[in-house]
Formats: sequence, structure tokens, C-alpha cells
Amino acid sequence: MMKLLALGIAALLPTAAVAQTPPAPDATVTSPDGSIAVAVTTDGDGRALYAVTRRGKPIVSPSRLGFLFTDARKIERNLKIAAVTRATRDETWEQPWGEWRSIRNHHNELRVRLQETTALARVMEVVFRVQDDGVGFRYEFPAQPSLPKANIAEELTEFNFAQAGTAWWKPAFLWNREEYLYNRTPLAAVGTAATPMTVKFDDGTHVALHEAALVDYASMALLRNEQANGFKAQLTPGSNGPKVTKTGAFTTPWRTLIVADDAPGLYHSHLMLNLNEPNKLGDVSWVKPGKFVGVWWNMIKGTWSWARGPKHGATNAHVRQYIDFAARNRIPGVLVEGWNVGWDGDWFGNGNNMNFSQPTEDFDADALTAYAKRKGVSLIGHHETGGAVSHYEDQFDAAFRFAADHGERVVKTGYVADAGQLERRLPDGTIVREWHEGQWMANHHIRVLEAAAKYKVSIDAHEPIKDTGLRRTYPNWMAREGSRGMEYNAWGGKNPPEHEVNLVFTRMLEGPMDFTPGLLSLKGQDDSDILSTIAKQLALYVVLYSPVQMAADTPESYAKYPKAFRFIRDVPVDWQDTRVLTGEVGDHVAVARKDRTSDDWFLGALTDEQARTVPVKLDFLDAGRTYTATIYRDGDNADYRTSARHAMAIERRTIRKGDILTIAMAPGGGYAIRLEAARRR
Amino acid sequence: MMKLLALGIAALLPTAAVAQTPPAPDATVTSPDGSIAVAVTTDGDGRALYAVTRRGKPIVSPSRLGFLFTDARKIERNLKIAAVTRATRDETWEQPWGEWRSIRNHHNELRVRLQETTALARVMEVVFRVQDDGVGFRYEFPAQPSLPKANIAEELTEFNFAQAGTAWWKPAFLWNREEYLYNRTPLAAVGTAATPMTVKFDDGTHVALHEAALVDYASMALLRNEQANGFKAQLTPGSNGPKVTKTGAFTTPWRTLIVADDAPGLYHSHLMLNLNEPNKLGDVSWVKPGKFVGVWWNMIKGTWSWARGPKHGATNAHVRQYIDFAARNRIPGVLVEGWNVGWDGDWFGNGNNMNFSQPTEDFDADALTAYAKRKGVSLIGHHETGGAVSHYEDQFDAAFRFAADHGERVVKTGYVADAGQLERRLPDGTIVREWHEGQWMANHHIRVLEAAAKYKVSIDAHEPIKDTGLRRTYPNWMAREGSRGMEYNAWGGKNPPEHEVNLVFTRMLEGPMDFTPGLLSLKGQDDSDILSTIAKQLALYVVLYSPVQMAADTPESYAKYPKAFRFIRDVPVDWQDTRVLTGEVGDHVAVARKDRTSDDWFLGALTDEQARTVPVKLDFLDAGRTYTATIYRDGDNADYRTSARHAMAIERRTIRKGDILTIAMAPGGGYAIRLEAARRR
Repeated sequence: MMKLLALGIAALLPTAAVAQTPPAPDATVTSPDGSIAVAVTTDGDGRALYAVTRRGKPIVSPSRLGFLFTDARKIERNLKIAAVTRATRDETWEQPWGEWRSIRNHHNELRVRLQETTALARVMEVVFRVQDDGVGFRYEFPAQPSLPKANIAEELTEFNFAQAGTAWWKPAFLWNREEYLYNRTPLAAVGTAATPMTVKFDDGTHVALHEAALVDYASMALLRNEQANGFKAQLTPGSNGPKVTKTGAFTTPWRTLIVADDAPGLYHSHLMLNLNEPNKLGDVSWVKPGKFVGVWWNMIKGTWSWARGPKHGATNAHVRQYIDFAARNRIPGVLVEGWNVGWDGDWFGNGNNMNFSQPTEDFDADALTAYAKRKGVSLIGHHETGGAVSHYEDQFDAAFRFAADHGERVVKTGYVADAGQLERRLPDGTIVREWHEGQWMANHHIRVLEAAAKYKVSIDAHEPIKDTGLRRTYPNWMAREGSRGMEYNAWGGKNPPEHEVNLVFTRMLEGPMDFTPGLLSLKGQDDSDILSTIAKQLALYVVLYSPVQMAADTPESYAKYPKAFRFIRDVPVDWQDTRVLTGEVGDHVAVARKDRTSDDWFLGALTDEQARTVPVKLDFLDAGRTYTATIYRDGDNADYRTSARHAMAIERRTIRKGDILTIAMAPGGGYAIRLEAARRR
Repeated sequence: MMKLLALGIAALLPTAAVAQTPPAPDATVTSPDGSIAVAVTTDGDGRALYAVTRRGKPIVSPSRLGFLFTDARKIERNLKIAAVTRATRDETWEQPWGEWRSIRNHHNELRVRLQETTALARVMEVVFRVQDDGVGFRYEFPAQPSLPKANIAEELTEFNFAQAGTAWWKPAFLWNREEYLYNRTPLAAVGTAATPMTVKFDDGTHVALHEAALVDYASMALLRNEQANGFKAQLTPGSNGPKVTKTGAFTTPWRTLIVADDAPGLYHSHLMLNLNEPNKLGDVSWVKPGKFVGVWWNMIKGTWSWARGPKHGATNAHVRQYIDFAARNRIPGVLVEGWNVGWDGDWFGNGNNMNFSQPTEDFDADALTAYAKRKGVSLIGHHETGGAVSHYEDQFDAAFRFAADHGERVVKTGYVADAGQLERRLPDGTIVREWHEGQWMANHHIRVLEAAAKYKVSIDAHEPIKDTGLRRTYPNWMAREGSRGMEYNAWGGKNPPEHEVNLVFTRMLEGPMDFTPGLLSLKGQDDSDILSTIAKQLALYVVLYSPVQMAADTPESYAKYPKAFRFIRDVPVDWQDTRVLTGEVGDHVAVARKDRTSDDWFLGALTDEQARTVPVKLDFLDAGRTYTATIYRDGDNADYRTSARHAMAIERRTIRKGDILTIAMAPGGGYAIRLEAARRR
């Protein structure tokens, strides 16, 4: 005998029930242009529900709000809407670096104060911010005697999609670190999914479900509930019972829904960045976007090793060679992995020997730093924790001082350990295991940013926590991995041609990814073939945004493809404007970006395994101005499945605003274009 | 940069890798008839995998084994098969009560000793027991210095089905207690599912995935993994970090896979009972199957109340009326709910006022007990904890002594609280919240059985933990709820006609269910119509097995349908044999059961919302013997959607072995048959 009994009896007494409670205040809000509407209600059992519509059409049907606690009664039933307040904001702010210089934050806000009608009378506020292109909401708990400390067992937030559709998603809570190919399934066939999850409803509407400002909280995954297209939040576990522990007043991350007519519309939304706090670091002129090369691919290929010995990669000779190559090609950064003590032996998930201020004998840090400086190049550091996270935190100050002393503006961090196996040392010295995306690691990554900022060092995190837009608050968080990058093309199970097209409308909605493109040799371990044309490798520099963009191949390889490499030399990594011109999730995409410091535009386009010619209209160019286009396109017989994957044609044309490009993309191919603006007369 | 690197490099050195390790011992086993085979292997990364085939066809493709711990490195990679031992068993044992008197346990056993090749060198044994109709396996950990205490964060067991198919499943980890309708979806569309999950592969093979002997461990749900038809275990959370805590040597519950050619084959398997330990209670002749009526449906309907006041149900007058009715109809039990102090006010999830030895003023326990005894009837007690579980344990001795003193042979327990909200008091007095199916509650239910057994009381648990066959070990655990029962037909959202047909091949694979059939009025609250014919209500007594079977309707209602009620009076609740004659999951079923104490057989058949006539061959009857059949079938115009739902025909026929019945079932209908065996000459 159970809960529905209560519901059943309530259902018998609608009039009585209404008679007992005063009419609830109106808890609805619309976006500035009125297209998106959100309504908060309570059901007969006092459960709080929210629903979202767009142009009158349901997007999210009524979905529950609430929390389970490990040591207190849950907050879910017996709630009333005690108060409603509204606000509206329209402001424009500037990114120090990024895909866009200027970002407009225009939204209407609804704050709903929910209070329990029981003796406990606990208060839970839900705040919605509604833009024309999406909705963000979060919980805000005031400090209250009846909830002095919140030990959260689970968040009961639901996301009941109002339509069936197709979903692109990655599994959550598996053994490795978000490095999976994307599944494309009906919404009703989604397993436990990481966010962002991208959905195309049967009516064509596109929705991306994610979260913003993941601070001092556990990352959210999506678990199917009993609704046909419904999901519920599932928070990442913590080592000590509650998934999240909070004291006094607290807020959760924002749960975000971008809603658009098409895939490009998802990419154009600034919802997530707008929901993050402004820059906390003050003057960040020391955060410098730039390309880099690195002592890396030869390790991934197995030619060199991270560990010391005959195959050691990070030797003075190798590093000098890379510095010379970078200098010759005006590439400002040189990454060196395996430069420090701690890599010998079984470091995987076991990085307690890693020392981030002690180079190996064959890596003369001081001499190499001086050599790089003379050549106008700076080293990029590497801190691989091997999962020994507390051990890394012990070394923060020494590690980042060492980095700054050796001219490192950027440090690449690493957390190579299996899911749920990151080492955290408690005050009493015992070691417990944490998940990559749990509350403790969310806080760890911010501790890294703060420790690095003291020394004006920026961070490129691998095996990271998901990106939720914190680069706005901490502009020294320049990039991260968090998905399958180029490295997979070295091994078995290579990235299929559709992978990067999937990334644009899924992983890239999070923010910059250190994908490490530009593998012009198109070769992995054992001379295995990469499933891409050479032109596509160039297009990736425009399509997959990162302010720290690697030229991932070796100097020897680039020497073999000087014409293609020219584009890698020319393409910038910082932009004042970005337009996704065409795109279908997983099929094809074309992106145009405008150089941050000139009037030049760059275009990148990709297809999946299908040959495609998608017309692209250049109506974003300045009227009455000519542009000289250098087009790197697939050769007429190019095909990722044959030796013709290297076939590429390079053409120069004059382009004007409104011109329409119809450039054939080969199977597994694409194209890259530089558009040089003519000087104004 | 990540795990696949290791895999990638391993892949480069297959010969080297093999050269380093001696050939692993043969870790395969087949069922006694050779039809089912299990193989255990390790992959290049030292992960342990198991696979299952049937008649050479894959059923489970290689699936991982292992554990995550909150405070130790996981056991998953770097494992070797250190030893393999085999055993075979063929024994027959007797159920004190049940669907079958005699049960054969015939299996081959494979024990695989897995040991880490790392310095920790931890040992994990996996034991498989393979019957001709399925496989059970569990983990066994010896006591070992490198794992003195196991704080299990998650079990890494996978179940990768080798084929696509259709699944019938209920969601896990939602807000209430396993009381959901069954979803029917493609395997690839299953959300987080409770077990048992029933699957029909595209080739027609039927599989039921569940667990046996859930003792001192958290219940297992199924979470989709990245495989097309793959699942991984997800254990029920606990209040204090680890989902399961074990000290020294320990074993897990058995993970069970019943495999059959058709749905009836699933029901016929004794795999789960065989995997449980034998009776621990010694002489259980005091455990007595029997029907009961109760002061209950009028509360469910809202006519009476559990709480005191003008509508109070458990009054001396009402209870006497029910005792009289039971005595008149030779029904040995009378359930009374709301008889004790504690129901007034908000008891839902808040049962701390419940007192299980203090009747309300208007319930004279001593007088009613004496009255019942004179009439040859015994009261059935009721302990509704309202989720205050520690508060209930405080009263165990007083509660069961009170029950015994008042002639109660069975007590119905209840745990009405939302999932994850059961109150557990720690030694220091703080209250934490536990899940219905977590490790602590698994142990609580056994503490109840032991406390009750001291007073020769049996248990019928509502809002219980799932049934994993423990009735074999504790024969006083007679029945439980754990799914949507008749009560849902009182409220909105009534059980659809297919519900009971779904139950037979899902919930009923667990064991007895206190469904409370026999609602001959076919009316719920507000005179709302139940979606069933009256003949189906009779069929449920045969189809849905329980040794404590309720006649759920009121005496007033039964007085209106004397002919139909006759079958309820006649049908036994204890059997010597059971045959599922025909059946398709969710569509239709016909079950024959032989009375435990005579040669009479009883038949029950159900259909879903479709009218059906399914031929049934009676080849299980004794040759050369005549049987007098009393057939209760749907009337010719019967239909659950119209007032003709009450249309029923009763016919008498003489039946012999081999006769074929073709009885029309109406939409939402079925039939019930009593087959009285003629005396042998």
C-alpha cells in the first residue's frame, strides 16, 4: 500500500484541496522575445514541477524538482509556492579570448520560493534565466535552521522531453574518462548519458541539455526515468556517502537547455557562458592564445617513451629540434611530455612518484628555456598526475613556480587513472578514491587554476572534468581534452570520419577542446591509416575551436607537406566573430571565423564518410570589399579509404560578400579557406 | 592520453605478451546436458571476462567482472587465472510449501581463482553453477591481508547480451517502491532497470536476468553500458559511502540467467531456489499456507480509515463481521490494518508513533482473538513501519510476542516511505536514510524473519526488498508485494489488462506475490470500473502464486456473486506440481497446478486486452482417469470495457488426459477451472 493512495485520495477532493490553499502566485516567465516560456507549478501532492514551451509548443513537459538527502527527509512533496520575484537583464561583456569578442547577455529571470507545508518548513528557491535561445535554472538554498548542512544523496531534477527524437550522447560512469564515440539513438534508447546531450526532436527542433558553472558540486549525468522521453539527474558519486555536501546557504550549478531551429543555432548560443560568473582573476593580459608543437606524437606512436631509457622522448636534442622547428614557423609553444621524474614503472593510476619540479637528467630545463627564449619560443609544461591528485596538490607551489621560472605560459595537466580511482588524501592520511567529475575534483580543478594564476600560468587539462563555461570566471582555463582526440588515430579503433562532425554539436558546445589536429602524415602506429583526408586535417583548425591549438605531427612529417602546412602556419587561434554557416549533427558542418586582430576570415568545412557538396553563402563579409581566398580542398579523387587521402588541390580566388561556394568534399574530407581582406582604399 | 594507450601498445606485442605468461588453465564448464556453456578468460590488459553460449549460440558475449572500492584500487585489470576447480551436484529437495513439492538441483560448478599480477596480488574467485536451464555465478573473496575490509563503491559485473531482442522491465531507483507497470521496449531502449528483467531475443530465445540469495549485500539494478545490448550492475546506494561494506572473507549474491526456448520455460526453472541455502529454521510445520480476508479494501477505497475517528476500519464490530464471514467460508485468516496506535496524523514515511503492541481503544485484541478462535479463524497482524525501520526493530520482541499471544500466524509488514528515505538510527542516535533495497535493509528483512520465527510467526512483506528465493532458507517468508497489486485498481491509473500477464513472466519469477485478487465487484474508488472481467479475477488465484492468498473484496460484495465466490472458496493455496501450459510474455498465459493434498488440478488462464482462444492440451492428467471440470469462463459477450465485464458462464464437463480445451477469453478476461479427480476404483 503506497504513495498513490495519497494521490488517489487527493484526486477525490479537488475542490476541498483548492479550498484549503490560497491560489498560488503566477510562476511563469518568457524570454525577451516571448518565444520561450517557463512555468513552475505544484501538483496535488505538493511536488514542484517546471515545464518549458517554445512558440507555444511543449519542449519539456512537467518535470520534478527536489533533493534526496542521506540524513534528512527529502525535499520533494508538500511544497507550496511561497513567493515569486522577477528580474530582467541586458548587458554585453567581452571575452579576453574566444570564438567571439563580444557576448550579449539578455534574459528574463524568474525566482520561485518553494516552502514545505510540513513542520520542517524548509525553503528551496529555483531560479530560471530565460534567453531567446534557451533556459538555465538552478537551485538556491538560503541558510536555514532546518537544513544547516545538506548531505545530498541525489538531485531529483527531471528533464521530461515533450517529443520523441534522435539523441547524440556519450555514456557516463564507465571505466575511462569521457573518451567515447558518440551514440546516435532514439531518445527512448539513450543509456546513462553524460552531458551535453544533443537532441533533434521529430519536428526538427534542436535541444542541447547540459550544465553551467559546475563549482563545488558533483557533475550531472542523465538517467532515463519512466517517462517515454524522460530523464532524471544522476550526480557523480563521492567517496564519502553524500554525492554533494554543502553547509549553510548554497546554490547548485545551472541546468541548461539550449533550444534552436537547427544545429548551427545550438552552437551560436551564449547561454552557458552567460550563466557563469565574470572574470575573477583581474588583469589576464598574460593569458596568451597560441599554437604549439610538441614532443608527444612520437610517444603516442610508441617510437619514443615518457619513461627514461633509450627511447626517452624529452631529451635536450629532441627538444632543441622542436624549438628550432617552432621558431622557423612562428609557432610560439613547444610542449614537452615525459620531461620530469616519475614516469618510470607503472604510473597509470599510480602517479605518486611524479615530481613536477625535477627534470630527468637528459632534460636541461634551464639551458632549454634560455635556448627557447633566444628563439622567441616558450616551453609548455606538462603535469601528469597519474591519478595521484593530493600528491599533485602537495606540489602546486613548487610546480607552478618551476613552470614560471622556465617561461611556461601554459601547463598541460593529466589525470590518467580509471574512473572513480583518483587518489585523495584525507587529513588523517588515509587515501580515498574520487571520480573525475565528483564534487572534490570539481574543486580541485579550481584550486589548480588559482595556484597557476599566481604564477601567470594557464591550464590545458586532459582527462579533465567536463567544461561548464568556467573559462569566463577563470580565463586561464584555456582548453581541455574530455573527449576522443587525435591520439585515438594512433591506435586500434580509430576515430571514424563522422567523429569530428559529431564533436562540433556535442563536445564543442562545452567549450575549447585540445583535439590536437594537423596529422598531415595521416599515419598512426604501425603505419596504420587515419580515416581522414589531408584537407580535413586543415579544416579542423577552424572547426574545432581552441585558443591553444597543436600542430600535432612531427617536424619530419610537416617537412613532407609544406603546402598544406602553410595553412597551419597562417591560421589564427583567437577570433572576434564565429558563424556556423551550415550543419547537421554527425553529417556535415561549415564554420567561418574572423581573426581577432585583422579583417581576415577563415573557413573550415567537414563531412562524414559521405562525399558532399553543401553550398555556403558568404553573406557575412564586408559589402563592397574584395577578399583573396586561398582554398585547400579535397583533390578530385580524394577518399579517406584510399591512398588518395592525401590528394588536395589549392586554389586562389577573389571573393565578395554574397558569393556562394560549392566545394566538393570527399568521403572523410573537407576544406579550409583563408580569406584575406583587401586594404580599404 | 589514456587507457587505450596501454591497450594499443599491448596490441603491438601479442607474441611478447604471450611469451611472458604461461598458458592459462581451461576455465570452461557446461551444463549437465551440455546445452549451456560458460567460459572465463582474461584479455590483453588482464581483465577477467565471462561468456555464455547455449547450443553453440552466444547468449552473453564476453562481459567484464570486477569491483570498484571507495578506499582501494579497483580489482579489474592485471588479473590472471591462478586456478580452476570443478564440481557436479545432483540432489532433490522438498519445499515445505510452494508451487512444487519436490525440486531437483542438478548442475555443474566451475570455480575460477583470479589473482592480480601486481604487487597487491589480491585474489577474487568467481563461481559458476550451470544448470540445463540457466547459469548462476557469484564472487567469493577469501580473507586476505591486502583486502581486510571491502568498501565496495560499485560492482563492475557486465551482462552483454549477444543478441538484440525485446525486454520487459521496471525502472529502478525511482521515488516509490517497485510499484510500476512493466515497460516493453527493445533491449537497446531499456532505461535503468530493476531485476528480474525478462528478454526475448530476436531468435525467440527467452532470458531472465536476476539475482539469488540477496543477503548482507545491496540489491543489483541494470544500467546500460556502451555495448549495443550490454548492461552493467548498479548496486543500490547505502547511507554511508560504500554501497556494500564487507569484512574478511565474503561472497556476493548469485547473478542469475535463466535461458529457455519460450516464456513457460522461464517459469519452470528452479535455478534461483537451488542457489539459495537450505532451510535454516528447522521444523517449520507451524508455517501454514492459507487464504485470508481483511479489513482493508474499504480503506483502500477510502470508505474506512486506518487512523482513528468516525471512519476507523479496525473496530470490534467490523472485525467480528469479517471473522464471521471467514468462518462461514472456511477462510482461515482475517487481516486487520489500522488496529494499532500510530496511524493518526502524517505517518507516510514518518512512522515513529507506530506501536505494534498497543491496539486502539475500539479494537479489543483479547476479545477478538478469543472470538476468532472459537470460530476456527486466526487474525493476521499488520506492522506498518511508515519507514521508521529502527523504531520497528526496537519493538521486535514485543510486537511478535503480541502477535503470537493473539493467535496471529502471519504478520503483514509495510514500509511506506519514499525510496532512499527509510529511517535507520545509528548507535550514536543520529538518523540516516536507507534505500528499500540497500545492504542494511537486506539485513533488516532477515532480522524480521528471525525475530518472527522465535514466535512461530510468518511474514508477508509489503514495500519489501525484491524476492531472491530466500523463502527456501527462511520458510516463514511466505509472500511479499514488490509490484503493482490490486490496490492500484482502486485509484486513478488502474492496472491495464496486460499487467497480470506481464507479472507471470517477470515479478512472479521472483516468487510469491501478495497481489490480493478476487475483486468481484470490479469497482474502485468512486465506483470506477476495474479493467478486468469477473472470470479473470478467479483465474488470478491459480496464475499468481502465493501461499497466503487474499479474498480482497468485501463480504457485502461477495454476497452479490455467490457462484463466482464458490471458486475462491474451493481453490487451494499450496501445490505439489505446477505446469505453465501456454504463454507469451504480456499477451496470454495458462497455468495448471495440482493440489498439495489431493489429486485435483486447478487451471487459470489470462489474456491481455485482446480476445483470444488458445488451445490447451491436458496431457498432465493421470491416464485412464476421469476428472469433473467446473469451468468459470467469460460470458459470450464479456468485455472489460463494458458492463458485460461481469458476464460469466459456469459449465461442468468430464475431462480425460489428452483432452484439448479451446475456451474463448474475452478482452481483459480469462478462465478458471477446477478439475476434481474421480476416486480410483
